[in-house]
Amino acid sequence: MPLPASDLRQRAAKIKLACFDVDGTLTDGRLFFDGQGDEIKAFHVHDGQGLMLVQRFGMAVALITARHSRVAEIRGHDLGARVFIGVEDKLAQVRLLCAELGIGLDQVAFMGDDLPDLSAFKAVGLAIAPADAHPWTARHAHWITQSRGGTGAARELCDLLLETQGHLPALLGDDAS
Amino acid sequence: MPLPASDLRQRAAKIKLACFDVDGTLTDGRLFFDGQGDEIKAFHVHDGQGLMLVQRFGMAVALITARHSRVAEIRGHDLGARVFIGVEDKLAQVRLLCAELGIGLDQVAFMGDDLPDLSAFKAVGLAIAPADAHPWTARHAHWITQSRGGTGAARELCDLLLETQGHLPALLGDDAS
Amino acid sequence: MPLPASDLRQRAAKIKLACFDVDGTLTDGRLFFDGQGDEIKAFHVHDGQGLMLVQRFGMAVALITARHSRVAEIRGHDLGARVFIGVEDKLAQVRLLCAELGIGLDQVAFMGDDLPDLSAFKAVGLAIAPADAHPWTARHAHWITQSRGGTGAARELCDLLLETQGHLPALLGDDAS
Amino acid sequence: MPLPASDLRQRAAKIKLACFDVDGTLTDGRLFFDGQGDEIKAFHVHDGQGLMLVQRFGMAVALITARHSRVAEIRGHDLGARVFIGVEDKLAQVRLLCAELGIGLDQVAFMGDDLPDLSAFKAVGLAIAPADAHPWTARHAHWITQSRGGTGAARELCDLLLETQGHLPALLGDDAS
Repeated sequence: MPLPASDLRQRAAKIKLACFDVDGTLTDGRLFFDGQGDEIKAFHVHDGQGLMLVQRFGMAVALITARHSRVAEIRGHDLGARVFIGVEDKLAQVRLLCAELGIGLDQVAFMGDDLPDLSAFKAVGLAIAPADAHPWTARHAHWITQSRGGTGAARELCDLLLETQGHLPALLGDDAS
Repeated sequence: MPLPASDLRQRAAKIKLACFDVDGTLTDGRLFFDGQGDEIKAFHVHDGQGLMLVQRFGMAVALITARHSRVAEIRGHDLGARVFIGVEDKLAQVRLLCAELGIGLDQVAFMGDDLPDLSAFKAVGLAIAPADAHPWTARHAHWITQSRGGTGAARELCDLLLETQGHLPALLGDDAS
Repeated sequence: MPLPASDLRQRAAKIKLACFDVDGTLTDGRLFFDGQGDEIKAFHVHDGQGLMLVQRFGMAVALITARHSRVAEIRGHDLGARVFIGVEDKLAQVRLLCAELGIGLDQVAFMGDDLPDLSAFKAVGLAIAPADAHPWTARHAHWITQSRGGTGAARELCDLLLETQGHLPALLGDDAS
Repeated sequence: MPLPASDLRQRAAKIKLACFDVDGTLTDGRLFFDGQGDEIKAFHVHDGQGLMLVQRFGMAVALITARHSRVAEIRGHDLGARVFIGVEDKLAQVRLLCAELGIGLDQVAFMGDDLPDLSAFKAVGLAIAPADAHPWTARHAHWITQSRGGTGAARELCDLLLETQGHLPALLGDDAS
């Protein structure tokens, strides 16, 4: 269930690792295939900007997807993120990252939109779903973004992290007010 | 004409085979072509999740399309579904599947969005149209989904089947309420 | 300016040739390019169904576009339509077709969405614009469809022609009411 | 902050150079990638028409993007525009163009949608953002278009320039009223 704004900000202020599902979260859920079975995905430039900004301010970013997708790997690496594809147990992957980074689950944000994201949703400090997430998963999110997946939902999370962790003055200068 | 909710649920509880038109139903109706005439289609990850879930709980799934489309074949097989392309008479194809599976037409759900789906719509136990189906066909549906084709309409049908056939506790555990 | 419904139907009943601009009319206006400059376009399956139906009932269909587009040629030919690409003067092309078919401009419907369609709009019996046509052109249309370009606007025109020319009983049987 | 209409028109009347960001401005922000990492972008035919029209009436047009994008180069050159890719400092690029054209920054319009456009926004005579621009940047625009990026936002700017600079009678004849 969505949190009151003050609780949400408290949780966001602690985050050191932001994890993103790919299809339906960093994309609008469309899987384009051509006649050879090759896949095309569409990512949003606003989300890419956000993922680069949170890393510039010291947070870690990971893409964690159940699909085996070369496109997800390429896009994630372009953005400087860790990428994990073909992941059957997303929470297990998050735990491995926590151990590696020496952080707790309460310092992890996880953004996802469907059942494979549910185990991580229930464990992390901040679970976020895009506006068009599947309802069986969305009801376990701490926060639902205004934007739909693949059209700026991930950027909303990045903006929240940047703002609650005090990076807006450095980023926007006099315009941060 | 849309059914009262109780009738809809009664029909859904009986379904053993879920059939899906492709263009406009599992896609948003867009046919992408490049300069060589090769086709690209966009399927939705939520629909794919649904089609896999209903099969996991024992239902059969078939894609039945009038177009000759290699992309539809590839996507259907990825999802473990039976795929029939270039089908001129969709109802005849449904009858063949019923005979093969030893089920009646009242145990078949058919989701489609335009005139080639009309013969099947009038014969099966549960005829469903996405929100943006063509009106001459939609008026023969038992149920119109909230989602448009290619953006979760098929998932809505899968969710209805999973729920009315009692699979939510196994799928969601304590969250099924 | 949009016509009263009765005038619209009178004009539609006379049409023997339906002409369609491509980009923004049969597509949503998006021109996809890859890194080699090759073009991809997205057509809608509902529009394709409509273009085939009006031809089945004896009307001629032409695609007339200012762009040199191999994709438009391929899609038009797939649908059995005449295709004219790289057309600088669309009205001149329409006049040639009228001469060839032995019909008058009052028997021509032209659907378009921007300035290159304006000369034809002012001359034909029935000028139609999709909901998202450019306003400088849309204000010269006899009728604005409910649908946006590339998402069923062309089908709305086809449906109007089929209905006003009395083909619904043959097409839908008892359902034509 | 958005200007009163009369101020906006005064600024628009002076413009000799119209600059456009690419992703999120001339596109809807989607970056399509295939499994080889090759990029596809979707531009809108209405925007292309606008960019050609303002050039026909003597204005200069430039595409200025931070990404290294072959697709942006190809599309820009097709439309007769100057194209600058991989630009780290957009305002510096605008200043170079001003020097080359012998114009002042008050004669430059700049359309963009995210933080890399902010320096140019604060310096030029007319800063415009599409309806779905990122809020941290949009609040520095003189004008927000009705259309979202990649669906006619650039055309709205072109139309404003054409109209305020008195070119509608030549363009539309009797229809310019």
